[in-house]
Amino acid sequence: MNKTYRTHHCGELKAKDDQKQIKLSGWVQKHRNHGGLIFIDLRDRYGQTQIVCDPEVSQQAHDLAQTLRNESVVRVEGLVVKRPDNMINTKLTTGAIEVHASSLEILSQSAVIPFQIEDDVQTSEATRLKHRYLDLRRKPMQKNLQIRHQINHTIRNFLNTQDFLEVETPYLTKSTPEGARDYVVPSRVHPNAFFALPQSPQLFKQLLMISGMDRYYQIVRCFRDEDLRADRQPEFTQLDLEMSFVSQEDVLTLIEGLVKSIMKDVLGIDVQEPFARMSYDQALASYGSDKPDMRYPIALIDLGTVFKDTSFKVFQSVLSTGGEIRGMNIPKGDCLSRNQIDNLTKRVQHFGAKGMVWIRKKADGLTCSIQKFLTPDELDGLAIALEMQEGDLGLVVADRASTARNSLIEIKPEALDKAGFKPTESWSFLWVESFPLFEFDAEQDRYVSLHHPFTQPHPDDLEKFKQEQDLEHVRSNAYDLVLNGFEIGGGSIRIHDPEVQAKAFSILGLSPSEAQEKFGFFLDALKYGTPPHGGIALGLDRIAMLLSGSTSLRDVIAFPKTQNANDLMVEAPSSISLDQMLELHLSSIKKKPTET
Amino acid sequence: MNKTYRTHHCGELKAKDDQKQIKLSGWVQKHRNHGGLIFIDLRDRYGQTQIVCDPEVSQQAHDLAQTLRNESVVRVEGLVVKRPDNMINTKLTTGAIEVHASSLEILSQSAVIPFQIEDDVQTSEATRLKHRYLDLRRKPMQKNLQIRHQINHTIRNFLNTQDFLEVETPYLTKSTPEGARDYVVPSRVHPNAFFALPQSPQLFKQLLMISGMDRYYQIVRCFRDEDLRADRQPEFTQLDLEMSFVSQEDVLTLIEGLVKSIMKDVLGIDVQEPFARMSYDQALASYGSDKPDMRYPIALIDLGTVFKDTSFKVFQSVLSTGGEIRGMNIPKGDCLSRNQIDNLTKRVQHFGAKGMVWIRKKADGLTCSIQKFLTPDELDGLAIALEMQEGDLGLVVADRASTARNSLIEIKPEALDKAGFKPTESWSFLWVESFPLFEFDAEQDRYVSLHHPFTQPHPDDLEKFKQEQDLEHVRSNAYDLVLNGFEIGGGSIRIHDPEVQAKAFSILGLSPSEAQEKFGFFLDALKYGTPPHGGIALGLDRIAMLLSGSTSLRDVIAFPKTQNANDLMVEAPSSISLDQMLELHLSSIKKKPTET
Repeated sequence: MNKTYRTHHCGELKAKDDQKQIKLSGWVQKHRNHGGLIFIDLRDRYGQTQIVCDPEVSQQAHDLAQTLRNESVVRVEGLVVKRPDNMINTKLTTGAIEVHASSLEILSQSAVIPFQIEDDVQTSEATRLKHRYLDLRRKPMQKNLQIRHQINHTIRNFLNTQDFLEVETPYLTKSTPEGARDYVVPSRVHPNAFFALPQSPQLFKQLLMISGMDRYYQIVRCFRDEDLRADRQPEFTQLDLEMSFVSQEDVLTLIEGLVKSIMKDVLGIDVQEPFARMSYDQALASYGSDKPDMRYPIALIDLGTVFKDTSFKVFQSVLSTGGEIRGMNIPKGDCLSRNQIDNLTKRVQHFGAKGMVWIRKKADGLTCSIQKFLTPDELDGLAIALEMQEGDLGLVVADRASTARNSLIEIKPEALDKAGFKPTESWSFLWVESFPLFEFDAEQDRYVSLHHPFTQPHPDDLEKFKQEQDLEHVRSNAYDLVLNGFEIGGGSIRIHDPEVQAKAFSILGLSPSEAQEKFGFFLDALKYGTPPHGGIALGLDRIAMLLSGSTSLRDVIAFPKTQNANDLMVEAPSSISLDQMLELHLSSIKKKPTET
Repeated sequence: MNKTYRTHHCGELKAKDDQKQIKLSGWVQKHRNHGGLIFIDLRDRYGQTQIVCDPEVSQQAHDLAQTLRNESVVRVEGLVVKRPDNMINTKLTTGAIEVHASSLEILSQSAVIPFQIEDDVQTSEATRLKHRYLDLRRKPMQKNLQIRHQINHTIRNFLNTQDFLEVETPYLTKSTPEGARDYVVPSRVHPNAFFALPQSPQLFKQLLMISGMDRYYQIVRCFRDEDLRADRQPEFTQLDLEMSFVSQEDVLTLIEGLVKSIMKDVLGIDVQEPFARMSYDQALASYGSDKPDMRYPIALIDLGTVFKDTSFKVFQSVLSTGGEIRGMNIPKGDCLSRNQIDNLTKRVQHFGAKGMVWIRKKADGLTCSIQKFLTPDELDGLAIALEMQEGDLGLVVADRASTARNSLIEIKPEALDKAGFKPTESWSFLWVESFPLFEFDAEQDRYVSLHHPFTQPHPDDLEKFKQEQDLEHVRSNAYDLVLNGFEIGGGSIRIHDPEVQAKAFSILGLSPSEAQEKFGFFLDALKYGTPPHGGIALGLDRIAMLLSGSTSLRDVIAFPKTQNANDLMVEAPSSISLDQMLELHLSSIKKKPTET
């Protein structure tokens, strides 16, 4: 440590350091004048120390301390003094001591700050993002970045001991839009030509397997030019990983070991392996989601058969337009008040549902919010389908399938909590496997990949694939890792046979010449001896968000972008000079409206 | 390990494994038929094992082996058999055994490969780059990527134990061209606006110090759209690092410890700290370079004063046009033959010099290749200036300053080697410090930063800086790390005072409004309490190149670009669709010539 600025950090001094002459440097968290003494809370990344400026110890320090503004950077020299037992601040690691300043120097006086540096910040997110360097001074943000650091460190240590090689793949590469849009980079040297920023290093990591690298990983930035939803960023970070001579089982076992290490190192938590597994079909059928939150293992029951002949108009209309009637049983949920159910109804409406039906099973029979519209058989059928016991509460939403499912999923934890249900575990990991290889896209009138075009068909369905029969039911060797209802990773065993790969392109509607133009180099590569291989990518932003208990990806990214893909601090994107445009052979086709 | 494909790697089996039933998977390096037995050299990243296909052990394996092509991927089951002592292959780690195949499976038959997978590859670099996945199968390339991996691993382990936090900074950021050109990324959401890919995370890392992160590092990709020289890539990787509350001494000490760890972990070599240091002025004056190779500590002497009145036309002309006459003494160099000197002359001509003069000091006096053009005083003066002893050889080039210097620097190791000089060390680290803060750019008619605009003026020259006096001689707190004549890193203590920063922008010719537009967010940030800070960036591509003994950056990058910024494998950059162009609000101003 540089002894000019500091001999210790601000989180370091303890009672054992009593009477030491020390130096500290840091930020003025706050300062206050008490009976002629000025107290400064001096802060750095490591902690906080109380400085006392007593004019009898140093007139200079006391005089200067009167000119201080919060968030100024100062250097202090002084004596460590143990506090009397009744003055110890047990909330601070340095609470047993204070430092009596013998000299004080302002290294950088702060202007008046736009918001206070506090755990619970009192300002808009836009202001936080514009002054991100101040927002990052707050302890929760520093903790979040430390958690990211620890996650990365654990990942690398784990994989490095398992023969994985970290290999960097290009950021300036080729545009092969499949699904999401590419960000592109115009070439100055080659007019009319563009690089693309990678949506993932998928082909490069497969080429590394073809190169015989055997086991590869990379913590890598990826780019997708999407219309941003709340939980997306135009650039995001993933752990990208690939292994040769493996089956799905090997990838899953490796990742379970890795996740176990992360949970232990970051949170001190022991998770049990193997993780639970569920097929995609089962997840959809039982929980209405391909990423069910198994802390709340309550099924969403499809009630279509119960109400197939109903005369209740609302249900009729939903069923006749291809919607779903879904319900779930909240065990012991009869204790929920009418008011509590009304609040849950407001929440499903917030998620787009038009309303919610409830049914209670009491000792003296069933009551239901739409009882007068149902036949006794329908009412009984509903309770039976939901497997209700006495004292239970059933909640039902009829709507478009996604709305019915998602709104019930959203209120499930709160409804269960109100009914006294406590999850048995805080961290619920689940593998969802056997995804369909394709889904039919009505808009494009063709099959698209559910995972990506390089995913191996499930061995049991390979013949159907080759014959192009019943393609919607061809399963893949793809798998997702789900944590508490969030997809935190996905991967697959890849195609390693060039003919299977060519067939996959053909089913996806790529003509041989299009396949050659876009992926010719890769089809070539497959012909020169390709090992069976597979891998996975884990979304590190989302993992950091979940492990830090944050509610937004923006809170675990040092310099994030808004939903509109703006960086509010540096003000990007921005215009570039005409010279730059000309050098890049570009002109804009949409002029700004002429101001006249 | 997946037991379906392999129980061991191809570099693992030893005499102790005799009589084990094993499985191996890998690539067929080569196969040969000897007296009814087929021998396969099976290769993976870890090594090579000899497989024997004996029809008496397995007819199936022997039959299939006859259909093999090199580089096919196969799976072998068989028995480990110890070789007789006289058959042990000491060149292979597995040379004590062979595997008698009981079954053989071709997992992926290879097409005929465009070049053999050998250490000394017999093909053009263009072919290697087009089929990079095959080139990367060669052992030297696999070793290079392993060295990179080890360097990264050592860096992170070292810094993680020293309180550094790894923080990711954005790749989609703001264009602030200073020096090199930016690569830009058009925004779809914001017409006429562009992101820029970072040339370095300089401002972000300084903002992290303002955030109180205290110690930051990142192994990060950077981008420069330059006309590529042989030793540049459009995207390159650096270790980027920044520390708060430090002086230059702290950064240098930290990096010396880090480099020592790298050299130990990667090469098993102990390097001595502290590293040698030299001022920029001394490096230029003594060695004609700001990155002298101190394995060959022979000065390049400026001979201008010796020949200031010469009547030798060539020297006259060089001096009158602002060129330099530079010479160096090769101790005991008189042993070099005329032919050897002619070869050195050809090499200086290859580097752009028109010719080279030699002078020998023998027992009976001086002889010189241009003796008849020189006065006796000039001849003596030359030998004295070069500090020649009997038996020495002097070599002189007169040309443009850079040509005279660089051509002598280029031939110095060979000339010294021929004279029997052996460097005392193989790895010579040197700090070059006290760089000038500015240099005057005649073309732009303004001062430009030698390092970058955020570099702190040297404290002793701060007054000159503030008064804008004698700006060419204002030194900076900048430093470069040199290894064997290559700059492998550079850094500085940064400006932390907003007024000094504003002055620096002003000297560089940025008006207050331009400075505000480009760097307003940063000037703002400096006002809210900025710690003194400094850092460095190390060029990891170049370090990997030097430590692996490679001669090209392309040999330590998995998927590099050519000098023309092309990726020959994926064929990037490439055209994008009209739809993509329209979505990005772009049209090309240079149309391709109409083909009629």
